[in-house]
Amino acid sequence: MSDIKKVVLAYSGGLDTSVIAKWLQQTYNCEVVTFTADIGQGEEVEPARAKAEAMGIKEIYIEDLREEFVRDFVYPMFRANAIYEGEYLLGTSIARPLIAKRLIEIANETGADAISHGATGKGNDQVRFELGAYALKPGVQVIAPWREWDLNSRESLMAYAAEHDIPVDFKKAGTKSPYSMDANLLHISYEGGILEDPWAEAEEEMWRWSVSPEAAPNEAEYITLTYAQGDIVAINGEAMSPATVLEELNRIGGKHGVGRLDIVENRYVGMKSRGCYETPGGTIMLRAHRAIESLTLDRESAHLKDSLMPKYAELVYNGYWWSPERLALQKLIDATQEPVNGDVRVKLYKGNVIVVGRRSDDSLFDASIATFDDDAGAYDQKDAAGFIKLNALRLRIAARAGRKLS
Amino acid sequence: MSDIKKVVLAYSGGLDTSVIAKWLQQTYNCEVVTFTADIGQGEEVEPARAKAEAMGIKEIYIEDLREEFVRDFVYPMFRANAIYEGEYLLGTSIARPLIAKRLIEIANETGADAISHGATGKGNDQVRFELGAYALKPGVQVIAPWREWDLNSRESLMAYAAEHDIPVDFKKAGTKSPYSMDANLLHISYEGGILEDPWAEAEEEMWRWSVSPEAAPNEAEYITLTYAQGDIVAINGEAMSPATVLEELNRIGGKHGVGRLDIVENRYVGMKSRGCYETPGGTIMLRAHRAIESLTLDRESAHLKDSLMPKYAELVYNGYWWSPERLALQKLIDATQEPVNGDVRVKLYKGNVIVVGRRSDDSLFDASIATFDDDAGAYDQKDAAGFIKLNALRLRIAARAGRKLS
Amino acid sequence: MSDIKKVVLAYSGGLDTSVIAKWLQQTYNCEVVTFTADIGQGEEVEPARAKAEAMGIKEIYIEDLREEFVRDFVYPMFRANAIYEGEYLLGTSIARPLIAKRLIEIANETGADAISHGATGKGNDQVRFELGAYALKPGVQVIAPWREWDLNSRESLMAYAAEHDIPVDFKKAGTKSPYSMDANLLHISYEGGILEDPWAEAEEEMWRWSVSPEAAPNEAEYITLTYAQGDIVAINGEAMSPATVLEELNRIGGKHGVGRLDIVENRYVGMKSRGCYETPGGTIMLRAHRAIESLTLDRESAHLKDSLMPKYAELVYNGYWWSPERLALQKLIDATQEPVNGDVRVKLYKGNVIVVGRRSDDSLFDASIATFDDDAGAYDQKDAAGFIKLNALRLRIAARAGRKLS
Amino acid sequence: MSDIKKVVLAYSGGLDTSVIAKWLQQTYNCEVVTFTADIGQGEEVEPARAKAEAMGIKEIYIEDLREEFVRDFVYPMFRANAIYEGEYLLGTSIARPLIAKRLIEIANETGADAISHGATGKGNDQVRFELGAYALKPGVQVIAPWREWDLNSRESLMAYAAEHDIPVDFKKAGTKSPYSMDANLLHISYEGGILEDPWAEAEEEMWRWSVSPEAAPNEAEYITLTYAQGDIVAINGEAMSPATVLEELNRIGGKHGVGRLDIVENRYVGMKSRGCYETPGGTIMLRAHRAIESLTLDRESAHLKDSLMPKYAELVYNGYWWSPERLALQKLIDATQEPVNGDVRVKLYKGNVIVVGRRSDDSLFDASIATFDDDAGAYDQKDAAGFIKLNALRLRIAARAGRKLS
Repeated sequence: MSDIKKVVLAYSGGLDTSVIAKWLQQTYNCEVVTFTADIGQGEEVEPARAKAEAMGIKEIYIEDLREEFVRDFVYPMFRANAIYEGEYLLGTSIARPLIAKRLIEIANETGADAISHGATGKGNDQVRFELGAYALKPGVQVIAPWREWDLNSRESLMAYAAEHDIPVDFKKAGTKSPYSMDANLLHISYEGGILEDPWAEAEEEMWRWSVSPEAAPNEAEYITLTYAQGDIVAINGEAMSPATVLEELNRIGGKHGVGRLDIVENRYVGMKSRGCYETPGGTIMLRAHRAIESLTLDRESAHLKDSLMPKYAELVYNGYWWSPERLALQKLIDATQEPVNGDVRVKLYKGNVIVVGRRSDDSLFDASIATFDDDAGAYDQKDAAGFIKLNALRLRIAARAGRKLS
Repeated sequence: MSDIKKVVLAYSGGLDTSVIAKWLQQTYNCEVVTFTADIGQGEEVEPARAKAEAMGIKEIYIEDLREEFVRDFVYPMFRANAIYEGEYLLGTSIARPLIAKRLIEIANETGADAISHGATGKGNDQVRFELGAYALKPGVQVIAPWREWDLNSRESLMAYAAEHDIPVDFKKAGTKSPYSMDANLLHISYEGGILEDPWAEAEEEMWRWSVSPEAAPNEAEYITLTYAQGDIVAINGEAMSPATVLEELNRIGGKHGVGRLDIVENRYVGMKSRGCYETPGGTIMLRAHRAIESLTLDRESAHLKDSLMPKYAELVYNGYWWSPERLALQKLIDATQEPVNGDVRVKLYKGNVIVVGRRSDDSLFDASIATFDDDAGAYDQKDAAGFIKLNALRLRIAARAGRKLS
Repeated sequence: MSDIKKVVLAYSGGLDTSVIAKWLQQTYNCEVVTFTADIGQGEEVEPARAKAEAMGIKEIYIEDLREEFVRDFVYPMFRANAIYEGEYLLGTSIARPLIAKRLIEIANETGADAISHGATGKGNDQVRFELGAYALKPGVQVIAPWREWDLNSRESLMAYAAEHDIPVDFKKAGTKSPYSMDANLLHISYEGGILEDPWAEAEEEMWRWSVSPEAAPNEAEYITLTYAQGDIVAINGEAMSPATVLEELNRIGGKHGVGRLDIVENRYVGMKSRGCYETPGGTIMLRAHRAIESLTLDRESAHLKDSLMPKYAELVYNGYWWSPERLALQKLIDATQEPVNGDVRVKLYKGNVIVVGRRSDDSLFDASIATFDDDAGAYDQKDAAGFIKLNALRLRIAARAGRKLS
Repeated sequence: MSDIKKVVLAYSGGLDTSVIAKWLQQTYNCEVVTFTADIGQGEEVEPARAKAEAMGIKEIYIEDLREEFVRDFVYPMFRANAIYEGEYLLGTSIARPLIAKRLIEIANETGADAISHGATGKGNDQVRFELGAYALKPGVQVIAPWREWDLNSRESLMAYAAEHDIPVDFKKAGTKSPYSMDANLLHISYEGGILEDPWAEAEEEMWRWSVSPEAAPNEAEYITLTYAQGDIVAINGEAMSPATVLEELNRIGGKHGVGRLDIVENRYVGMKSRGCYETPGGTIMLRAHRAIESLTLDRESAHLKDSLMPKYAELVYNGYWWSPERLALQKLIDATQEPVNGDVRVKLYKGNVIVVGRRSDDSLFDASIATFDDDAGAYDQKDAAGFIKLNALRLRIAARAGRKLS
């Protein structure tokens, strides 16, 4: 066992991470620093203080990171139109690098030599936490209790809690959701329970952030999103901070049944898993961002971004936010976003996100292209013949040489 | 003017291509062969015969290509999950190579030395027709009247028709839609009219194939799609031919308000244009294909496909169906589809296409992965530590060397 | 310790794998099957039999795999023009999947439940062996002694050998090269020793397969390579089997000082390492293959291959030969090679491989393209204006909209 | 004919562009501004002044652009390790955007409404000039005389010159090389003549910048190149400007027979062509840049660059230097070059460029990685087992499900 003196724990205040805090103290005979962050998960973070104090924790960090989360993580990712495997908006993935960063910063501030988290040994989150931690502090020790201990059942956890006077919110523990959930300002996710049968439809009661399309209002709602350099800066003309934008879009989207997703995805650790996600605001953001780009981005810049998007999304999913390659890609992406300004008008109705209009002072759309050639000679229909002829030349030469296309 | 003896014309039977037929006869003093195909555009093709005969056409081809269209063009494309610019399902693009192929085959059969079409000089379709034609018959002459003549207004067309006794369906011509439309079994498209203002919402009356989400049934409908090697072979357990599958999905999707799209896209000829599309069946197919792949495709095969998809879609959009590079990509794609078998259950409701279940005898999903390690040693949570450590190694070395990640 | 009954060992007959054989017998109390292959490493394989017998091995496999190696591994890889990190011809990487395959086949034949190899825990080879093994027999056990035992020095190995009556070729062991080497028909590699200082120049005495450029003949030698579907089938007009081709090219190339390489590369396990390689035949093959492709491959097929080559090379380097993604890429690559036929003339002189001519019945090169337009209208210089105008259109629109290019 | 008042001509001072100058004056009845640049082609530019004056040209620009050429064009391109089609170092391609930029700047300064150049209608250069021009000044007129006039033979050019009192350097014209050549500080190219037969070996007399390997010194020469942020800043410890670096490398490389290339390439306009190139300095630069990157670049940054390199090279080759997509890629590339500092030692001998050493304060190479785990726990050989196991998991699951790898 490494000689660890102080460990910073990503602490939610719940049963699991409370047991981890105690287990770390006992197993490693080390000081524990707790770090609890509000990243929009929808639960109070302040109660974590008393729980930590009750376990004798002396250094307790409780922080509201919502603005930083959206501004520095969610927004840059949406500039890339990132989607993993054609469907997933990376809601869990994008929160981990922020947590990793703060864990390391706190380790540096408090002189800790280790960090710890409550992610299991079969998921992606352990990878995301730990790659970030190692990338930011290469000599850090990482303790992943779920990969080490033998408290691998709810019963053993409860027993351990009881034995060590860890207060258990029995009401909560007793009515525990059958699903493994994770939430932040971008989304809430569900795994486990009946979802383990990919043929089984998710139950309506599972979903927490959105109504069903059936239960959504019968009246559509139109909203206008204003973009500046690829980021939303106002809703319906009202300027808002990044976190406020996402909160508001979650509210409106959730009300209209927007953003539910049910997929089977490929984890970085090698297995397939079935997950359900609610991403009301993010679902609107992706469609709207593509719409404003459609008007303002040059074709080849857009296609270049599209060709790199799967790579970018994979990096975020796999936990390589804090890597030179993600940063290099981000430079490319951000370089394209300067002209991505303007308004997108979106209609929300019973699960649908329908782009109905877009406008921009930086628009490259020109309905008068027909008359364009008159003043500037830009488009002469006869040019098309030459364009086609030369693009076809290699194909003609090949055909003449007897090549078959089948 | 090249010395052209016989030209095969892609003939719809409508005013424009009737004028073209006559204009070709007069301008080139050549024989005209007409080719009219049913590719699911929803209009009778047989009436084209009498119109062609009335103009003295002797060789008239009228064909039902619906099965070939779906089997050999639509289905292979959907195996690639092709989407252009994140949104467009390539409904127009995919029909052109089939028409080009038949034009050339008919030219070979009839001894024609040229082909002709009614696409304008500013759009993508001229490119798609002509690249295909040149690739399949390198010495063919192509006549694109819209790039050559001066009949560039509806009035001049009507006048020409009147002058040359071309029967005009005045009722139809009089009530002509303000939109430029194109339809086939995969979609119907709209351009022009008020759509030229990308801020203006499309009018409800414009849409022809689908009801609005608002007007769709209040009851959801569930359907089960059965896949064999990446293609849908049955709906709700009933085996169907490719064209029948698509017709049926169009019917069901249209009924539930599925598949409307309103975008600004980048044409190959260099300008942006705004288009609206209805692709009810295709919209269902894309989601369902991704769902069955999610269960049956290996992760890296799926990611490889995703990384190549934008290239594939661009090739189809730009008119390079008949090219060695599209064929090579298709080999790769098709090589992945052998295990893409099984059922997808989809819920349709007021514009939403919701995948609710997927199952397959070729599934790579294993909910019992938890117990997997017990019998086969496949997953030991402790392995994750090594996995992360080695993936982090380069990042740690870089951090130790003082590299900053910002 | 898993309950292992029989293990197939990749056995070279040398000290290390002899110790491993004994150690496996002792540690696992299991039967050992030895597998020794001639893949062109330039050492006799038959002596391994007596050594294995002396240790009481009952099932001994000794095989000449040279033809299979070149035909099914080297040749397909060269069709891809694979180079790792711009320099490395993957000589070690490409041999491992063949060994893995045979290990598993022999395990299946002999009823073994495990395989074992002598690769260390810090290199790529362990990964390549084991990924292949797992991919081909998912339940197999893998024993990598270097990751498990404590015989981690030459002294402890020698002591173990002495203690267990393993015959040590002291002459060989005593004059052991300071380098870690690996050889097969494609190359010989060197690591370690003074190479660990990347600033130090490799010593001339290190190189074994080639003379230095300085020591090469003062007269150049010309050879003609004949390709059929992307593979070399004859040298100077003489038809040869794949292995004979490579042997002959190694001989000629080595004589002319061709194919030495000195690089720092990035290992899959996360560290950089410095390696020197001699790949005389392969160096000729790469240049010549590109030359015959330059004449016979369509431009976009070639560019598609080039864009995928780094991915392909990375897969081979990292040990994913036996993976669905490598196979899918191979389908694409092989689909392009049908017309890659013809002759390449190469001049070899003191380390230089100079392509001086290429010809093919499938050539797409047409020096008379100047007159081409006369008969077939393929190239009219005026077409170039339209080609440029339309390709420039998006750039002009952007410039008109005030976009800056800096 | 467009109404053109003033045209800026890329003027070499030679016969062709002198005839063009006169032809422009006569045909368009416009003023001509000449622009002659020294980009290292090895010919005096000042004599162009008298020739232009003799034709009555009033605005004459003669400029030394060598430093700008290397600093802003060659160096950024070499940061990308750009090679077109696996062989070509883009020597001609990279000079055109600079010329296009200055043509447009001069047009803006002099109030010209058009530019003109002497490139033919079948090559890439017309595209490169004109795409650049349109991208930088969207309303500019472009006059490409070779696509317009009928002076399409040397005889007609000479006759036109005689008729219009254009002084012809008969000695030069009489001994005109059978090759079409283009030179700048990066390379000299040859096309035409016997090269039109791709099977014919280039004649020794053709080459102008380098001796043959046979004629090169019998003694090798070692040089040390110092890099700062990806660019060479010193040779053998002596700091030099970019142009001086390239001049010096050309001198040394040419002396040692380095940098000859003989290829068949695919032009953007659709045909194959055979070209020979001498790029002595560039050939050294590419190898050396890869070498310094091998030590200082993170693996995934390097692989990302490699995966994008073919795209980047294609953009440069096709004339899209002045495009948002090239600029976005450059941002990514440049973002990786900050740590690309240090020295590379290269041995030059009879055509060979042999990297023999590299060192850097920013090195990520760590020969003591073996002991690394001791102090920092970075590498534990046992981690490799977990790394392999998890990377193999998807392959094992697939194999267990009966998937075949063939």
